[in-house]
Amino acid sequence: MPYDKKLNQFQIAQTNKYNVFRCIVREGPINRAAIAKRLDISIPTVMAIVEDLFGKKVIRSAGKGESGVGKQPEILAIEPDCFFYIGVDIGRGTLRIVVNNIAGAEAASMKEPTGDPFPEKEFISHVKKLTLRFVKKLKIGPDRILGAGFAMPGLIEKGTGNVIVAPDFGWRGIPLQNWLQTGIPYPALVKNSTQALAVHETSVFWTDEVHTTLCVNLGYGIGAAIITGEDLYEGTGGISGELGHCVVDRDGPLCKCGNSGCLEAVSSGEAIARQAQTIIAHHARSKIAELCGGNAAGIDAKMVFDAAKAGDGLALKIINSAAENIGVGLSMAVNLLDPDRVLLCGGLMANGPDFLDRIKASMEEHLTAKADRDLVLQAGTRDEYSTAKGASRVLMNTLWARRALPI
Amino acid sequence: MPYDKKLNQFQIAQTNKYNVFRCIVREGPINRAAIAKRLDISIPTVMAIVEDLFGKKVIRSAGKGESGVGKQPEILAIEPDCFFYIGVDIGRGTLRIVVNNIAGAEAASMKEPTGDPFPEKEFISHVKKLTLRFVKKLKIGPDRILGAGFAMPGLIEKGTGNVIVAPDFGWRGIPLQNWLQTGIPYPALVKNSTQALAVHETSVFWTDEVHTTLCVNLGYGIGAAIITGEDLYEGTGGISGELGHCVVDRDGPLCKCGNSGCLEAVSSGEAIARQAQTIIAHHARSKIAELCGGNAAGIDAKMVFDAAKAGDGLALKIINSAAENIGVGLSMAVNLLDPDRVLLCGGLMANGPDFLDRIKASMEEHLTAKADRDLVLQAGTRDEYSTAKGASRVLMNTLWARRALPI
Repeated sequence: MPYDKKLNQFQIAQTNKYNVFRCIVREGPINRAAIAKRLDISIPTVMAIVEDLFGKKVIRSAGKGESGVGKQPEILAIEPDCFFYIGVDIGRGTLRIVVNNIAGAEAASMKEPTGDPFPEKEFISHVKKLTLRFVKKLKIGPDRILGAGFAMPGLIEKGTGNVIVAPDFGWRGIPLQNWLQTGIPYPALVKNSTQALAVHETSVFWTDEVHTTLCVNLGYGIGAAIITGEDLYEGTGGISGELGHCVVDRDGPLCKCGNSGCLEAVSSGEAIARQAQTIIAHHARSKIAELCGGNAAGIDAKMVFDAAKAGDGLALKIINSAAENIGVGLSMAVNLLDPDRVLLCGGLMANGPDFLDRIKASMEEHLTAKADRDLVLQAGTRDEYSTAKGASRVLMNTLWARRALPI
Repeated sequence: MPYDKKLNQFQIAQTNKYNVFRCIVREGPINRAAIAKRLDISIPTVMAIVEDLFGKKVIRSAGKGESGVGKQPEILAIEPDCFFYIGVDIGRGTLRIVVNNIAGAEAASMKEPTGDPFPEKEFISHVKKLTLRFVKKLKIGPDRILGAGFAMPGLIEKGTGNVIVAPDFGWRGIPLQNWLQTGIPYPALVKNSTQALAVHETSVFWTDEVHTTLCVNLGYGIGAAIITGEDLYEGTGGISGELGHCVVDRDGPLCKCGNSGCLEAVSSGEAIARQAQTIIAHHARSKIAELCGGNAAGIDAKMVFDAAKAGDGLALKIINSAAENIGVGLSMAVNLLDPDRVLLCGGLMANGPDFLDRIKASMEEHLTAKADRDLVLQAGTRDEYSTAKGASRVLMNTLWARRALPI
């Protein structure tokens, strides 16, 4: 157990400055006395810091407040467009970008299809170009951009932002953060997509009462991330949350990772489509065959869900088996982590409440029944910019923690 | 993200006092100037605190140190027997107690068989009596006892120390900490056994380089606990680490928890013994039948391991299947948590390195192969007092954190 932290004079001054600025960002408009009370520091200290922040043009006066007696206090507010920060979701086939101002309000967002992720270096140059071009169009100078967070599917090394492996992209050993940083005139940070998604989704549903959130991304692949309080649990090397590669069916099909029966190999969007493709290639008597116009190779997970909704027995069987396996995977994660909230996100969740209900039933069946858990399982926001927003939030959290704002 | 912590004058004084005392406990013998340097506080502050600690008779002078010039500085040491703290392992059939002095040295330990855990209240009274009697025999007054930590197998509610359920004891809904506290004149704290074990084992193997440890207790049952840095990850309600109830074989046997195919139902000491019992009741041609003298009901896990060591095919099959399943369970936990160390403890680990090797091979086979993990899998200490020591350590960590020492 380390000694309790004690700060020296310089650290105390820095702490006070960041706390005052953050207090105005989060709780403003607010007057000097209220800041002093909120942070338990003296009014002269607040006054000196506020003077400095005025000089840097990062806060502004928002008029006079009410006062019982004496002079009316000046109300301080953030200069919302003094700084911006960026989140980029490097998705399979689509790039999504959000730009927020320092107050957290979205200034702009865009999406654009991207081509094949090869050669890697060219693809990454293209991502950079699109990002820089979008920001330029918004007429925000690079000195007002605090940084950009990039979300990338795959195993991302903590600290370096290197891609260890990204199976959906066919990448291995790519120094992504490094390559992105070259030519971007503000800090660039790379995080795993599901971890970024989880940071945003948890913030949307966050309350003081929630202790640990498990956020699961059910899409083309399956991933998860763990948030304790508001902090991302990264694990030793940043590659925690690999729920998709937990073995749920040891006699199951081969997974891209080399093992057999991984959750991702039996329940992901890709696995659902593949199962339907295999069956339809042999049996044409299914609603799925109709929906794909006889082209088995063109079947995707959505067609299987649509066929199931129309009462197709084959499709229902595939969907129910996927939900059953997701429930088994979730039960393991809940047994190990004891979260109080499980958020289910990703493309598969766009298919109505039945799927969620089936997952829940299976999870509850396979959980240690002995424990009376206070566990909420619910769907996430289904905001298509969730991952980009999460990437921007991870970047901002890192800058606050490193005290790397130009104030 | 909360504001950075700022302390008021009283809190700073308390922090300084606890830090100085802890510095002498952990790094003593040490002189005043070295303490001031280590904690980055002024020498007069250290001098005043040391004066106070002398008055409370919790530290002592340990002579004069070397000095280049001028007066030789007085060396300060902890008064090791000023305080003691206790750890109690409420095991299946056996109670183990350790008593440590404030310096962490073991003052005494004992074990005693306990009878049936019914009625619960009587059993708990017996545990209290044995604990108090042992301490009395050591002639340590209750005012010098800081507290007692109790380790109990089962699901223990965080905060209250209530037993939600303890399958091995047949208990459900027992306010254990409350009942223990009544009649014990110092703080009593209840923690899950595997969590206590993990706290001790992690401390034995701890280095600055280790980030996250997964400690697994392979015994009559199977449990696990997660330690990040030196801190126990408890989960929302304190019931994390239920690796034993992760489903590894969905067509497997019924588990005590009500589900089927839990790791505990196929790989625990109890499961290994049960599998052998069932087989031997029908086939006598095995070394196991010889070892149990024809009494199938008397077979325990050790006999199966011994028979396997002697080359018995049936026994080998049971042991290998148990190891294979433990490896599958570990692969899930490692995929989710990304630890850098896995410690295997508990009775099953007493059966030689082959078992560990087989578990390791299975874990590696089922792990996401893509990730180049820096993962160490190793056996724990096999100290029979590990859990009791862990319980004492949990108690002491709690007292330090709560600043609940009489100084």
